[in-house]
Amino acid sequence: MASWFRRQRPRVEAPTLTPRDTAAGALRVDLAELAPAPDSFLGQCAALHLVFIEQLTAAMANAPRVADKDALARVAGVVFERYRGFTAELERLQLDKTDVMTPHLDSVEEFKRRTQGGEWHEQVASAHVAIGFLTDFWIRLAAGLPGELRGRVTAALTGGDIDGPMHRILERAIAANPTLASRLALWCRRLVGDTMLQARSALVLHGDRSKDEAQIEPVFTELIAEHTRRMDRLGLTA
Amino acid sequence: MASWFRRQRPRVEAPTLTPRDTAAGALRVDLAELAPAPDSFLGQCAALHLVFIEQLTAAMANAPRVADKDALARVAGVVFERYRGFTAELERLQLDKTDVMTPHLDSVEEFKRRTQGGEWHEQVASAHVAIGFLTDFWIRLAAGLPGELRGRVTAALTGGDIDGPMHRILERAIAANPTLASRLALWCRRLVGDTMLQARSALVLHGDRSKDEAQIEPVFTELIAEHTRRMDRLGLTA
Repeated sequence: MASWFRRQRPRVEAPTLTPRDTAAGALRVDLAELAPAPDSFLGQCAALHLVFIEQLTAAMANAPRVADKDALARVAGVVFERYRGFTAELERLQLDKTDVMTPHLDSVEEFKRRTQGGEWHEQVASAHVAIGFLTDFWIRLAAGLPGELRGRVTAALTGGDIDGPMHRILERAIAANPTLASRLALWCRRLVGDTMLQARSALVLHGDRSKDEAQIEPVFTELIAEHTRRMDRLGLTA
Repeated sequence: MASWFRRQRPRVEAPTLTPRDTAAGALRVDLAELAPAPDSFLGQCAALHLVFIEQLTAAMANAPRVADKDALARVAGVVFERYRGFTAELERLQLDKTDVMTPHLDSVEEFKRRTQGGEWHEQVASAHVAIGFLTDFWIRLAAGLPGELRGRVTAALTGGDIDGPMHRILERAIAANPTLASRLALWCRRLVGDTMLQARSALVLHGDRSKDEAQIEPVFTELIAEHTRRMDRLGLTA
């Protein structure tokens, strides 16, 4: 297991990474130096968003309540809009969707298979954890895209609200059945490993292990901190 | 089997139904007199569109080609926009989504189960046949909605293009593998019965069998003619 799995390690200041202001004003380290070229970035990101749509639609189909079906359909709609944003960039760059997405299909399919929940609450938790973590990740990775593309991709990645509605679905479900909390906490802990592996697969490493880790470490520390806050808000131990 | 299943019966002119012009200029009979109240109309129509999204997303997940995944995702996006249109009308009427959709969940779920294809081509054909037929049906049924609601619901039901992309996916698949044609023709013939039952379940009948049939018959004759044209365009015997 790579060292960035040890989330207890204290936050490292990485001088080679550019901190930048975010909407929330928080300091975010980014992954600019490890970002793939636009074709690979957009291809993997688009393929992954199709998997998110599948996850959300499966959860929608199995939702016992109409209100949850409706909320999950709307979240899938937001993901679809983001997907449409990435494919619009592919068209702008005159890149062929098939060429750029095909190399990533096996990897995202495997990710989907490994994070597929057995029942409804797990399916919702999977989508919440995976979309939350990976969106945070791809926003940081977008720092490595050239100029205007970076801005438009970041806008696509942050368009609409996903975290809020997903949180409310789970919050209500846990309140209605408090015994869910410990089961979902375990499930989410399992998920985060596969989710991090999916994220890491997008990075273009230099091959110099210590240099790579020095760049990756602070970002994943921060991503795990955000994941932990996401779990905390639900009263789940991350 | 009700008489409206016998599609060979000659077209009956039904003086009680109002013919109206369509975009294509064709004469369309409608189902105004058998239409349910707005709450039931919108509830069933919305629940059914969630099932369409599930069908399309399952087909997207199983599509072997990126181009088909992309096309199916976009069609699901169109269906979602239509769904959003129906739920916007529910909000406008201050109707609760749960109240109006819940009574229809079992029926649309059963419909989904019965029309679920075993493999990818069948899944795409199911979505094409079901969405095509039922959209034609709901457009005619919308004639029974009051004034402005009718216009907005019809606009939602006709927003975006679904038939075109679905046709092209199947056309290409059949061209690539001509032995598919006879299998899909049989599959679609099976589907249409369940699809017609789902449509019929939305009608509010007078209880006078001969009067009801006189109103239903010409509409279903026309719907089956449209279904047959849809199959013909694919070179499939309906």
